[in-house]
Amino acid sequence: MQTKNNHLVIMAGGVGSRFWPMSNEDRPKQFLDILGKGRTLIQLTLDRFAELIPIENVWVVTGERYADITREQLPEIPESNILLEPCRRNTAPCICYVSWKIKKLNPMANIVVTPADHYVEDIKSFKEAVGEAMEFTAETDAIVTLGVKPTHPETGYGYIKADLAFSSSRKKHVFRVDGFKEKPDLKTAEAYISEPNYLWNSGIFVWSVSTIVNAFRVYQPTMSKGFEALAKVFGTAEERKAINAFYEKCESISVDYAIMENAEEVFVRPIDVGWSDLGTWGSLLKQSPHDDHGNALIGKDVAVFDTQNCIIHTTENKRVVVQGLDGYIVAEKDGVLMICKLSEEQRIKLFH
Amino acid sequence: MQTKNNHLVIMAGGVGSRFWPMSNEDRPKQFLDILGKGRTLIQLTLDRFAELIPIENVWVVTGERYADITREQLPEIPESNILLEPCRRNTAPCICYVSWKIKKLNPMANIVVTPADHYVEDIKSFKEAVGEAMEFTAETDAIVTLGVKPTHPETGYGYIKADLAFSSSRKKHVFRVDGFKEKPDLKTAEAYISEPNYLWNSGIFVWSVSTIVNAFRVYQPTMSKGFEALAKVFGTAEERKAINAFYEKCESISVDYAIMENAEEVFVRPIDVGWSDLGTWGSLLKQSPHDDHGNALIGKDVAVFDTQNCIIHTTENKRVVVQGLDGYIVAEKDGVLMICKLSEEQRIKLFH
Repeated sequence: MQTKNNHLVIMAGGVGSRFWPMSNEDRPKQFLDILGKGRTLIQLTLDRFAELIPIENVWVVTGERYADITREQLPEIPESNILLEPCRRNTAPCICYVSWKIKKLNPMANIVVTPADHYVEDIKSFKEAVGEAMEFTAETDAIVTLGVKPTHPETGYGYIKADLAFSSSRKKHVFRVDGFKEKPDLKTAEAYISEPNYLWNSGIFVWSVSTIVNAFRVYQPTMSKGFEALAKVFGTAEERKAINAFYEKCESISVDYAIMENAEEVFVRPIDVGWSDLGTWGSLLKQSPHDDHGNALIGKDVAVFDTQNCIIHTTENKRVVVQGLDGYIVAEKDGVLMICKLSEEQRIKLFH
Repeated sequence: MQTKNNHLVIMAGGVGSRFWPMSNEDRPKQFLDILGKGRTLIQLTLDRFAELIPIENVWVVTGERYADITREQLPEIPESNILLEPCRRNTAPCICYVSWKIKKLNPMANIVVTPADHYVEDIKSFKEAVGEAMEFTAETDAIVTLGVKPTHPETGYGYIKADLAFSSSRKKHVFRVDGFKEKPDLKTAEAYISEPNYLWNSGIFVWSVSTIVNAFRVYQPTMSKGFEALAKVFGTAEERKAINAFYEKCESISVDYAIMENAEEVFVRPIDVGWSDLGTWGSLLKQSPHDDHGNALIGKDVAVFDTQNCIIHTTENKRVVVQGLDGYIVAEKDGVLMICKLSEEQRIKLFH
């Protein structure tokens, strides 16, 4: 349910080129229709929250070079809600800035913060979870993270240890957090997922603006004071210049380190919604529609013979015929063709 | 050595699309730089004979739809020497037509006939062989075929059985032919190549114009009379129309069946010059320059990792990165990408 206090912050600062040649620094993953759904990941992100958040309360924080593509892909959003970072400083400065912006407009605001480049399959359950978390944070000083029910012992994510015995009296699906765990090794990850109370840290946060601003005041006083001092120029012609000057000086730190691991009233709302951060070609293959042989074929005219477990991604108007491959990535974009074993995808960064 | 009587006939009627997507009906193999040498196969064919044949004596017989591309690729050749077939009728009508054309201009002409889409590595030895054969046919009524010393028991070629005991008194490398053999099965091919006197039929012929015209008169009298009757309109505005009408009626038959297997004064000049008809992707891989891992990489910017025995062919201005392939064809052209195991290349015709 939308309320006028509900705000959405889409963090779209990623410059990843893990999906090269599909993604590159000119067009990172969030601006691509990487799943072949007719909408880019940032558009799908907006869609996912549309029923919960009035469009005028949607904020995007992204890099300066992505200003045009953001406006182009999300024309519904007020232009003044697109905040541009002059440099990359991880998530804490981004969230601190937008929180002060929102606070100035509405001190009663209730905020959900999300990465722009994740995927959720079961949107209905996801909305229920976010809605519940927002109802909770509207009434409390809680910081809530969505925690993903693990499907495998992933070593690429941080984990949240939940205290399942201690659910909120207000919301029975919201639990107190026992601790945040760094990316584990495989053995530790296996131990985690053998227990019911370890969840993946999704990087999706819910809090009221007063809660998060207070948390920054306490745990990141320098950063918080800096943005607070700039609040007087927010909405004026001076904002960009002042922000650019201050941003450079900000510490590059994640909100997890800066706030979450220190804060006291931290809760987690477990979700089991087919979430993926689409962090690897393998996860992309998993989330994309398959043929009977486990191939994800994204493109207008892709034909395969004797081929299985491949992801073939050609968003251009190409005819593609593949025979005799098992477990490969075939990706083509902008005059670049890449063929690589899925099991070797970590080497892609060396190729471009 | 050039003499003004020497003529070259380049048969460029092939429409093969075995090298799809590189080749297709709009641009068959002879018009492609399939080896990445900066010259197309028909241009390399002309180059190969340049020292032997005056340029004004070079003839090309090709399909009507290839008139423009032929003129574009061989601008040195007089336009009137490009003969256009209205339909495909195999090699005999093509050779009969051009032989009557040449005879009308020069009854003393001495002719070498070659396909447009073969490759020869050792051009120096090849020129010696052709020169010797032409000297022989200038003095005799002989029909000479170049016979390729086999390198493996190929089942895709016809074989020539030479009588090595009976070399010409005039040319010690020219031998009488004992017989032409159809494409053999593997066992027969293995038996052939275990003997020194079996050679591959290259489809390259040498004869004087009077010899070949007489042979057509004897063995293909209807065809021969037809073209002879049209000789009076050769070089006039009526030629095309008259040829088009007659060509339709010609039997579709190869010069091998029509003439060679019947003629009496048939000789063979063995060659061992790195010849290939470039009939398969495998032969293309063999003839192309390799890296240390047996890869033929044709394209402006092709990088491979953990890859061997692959042919990667992208004539367009593409960046290509391939990891982890062994024994594959990767070919891209005009918006079409094909990946196929070399061992399955016979299936390519099913793909397009």
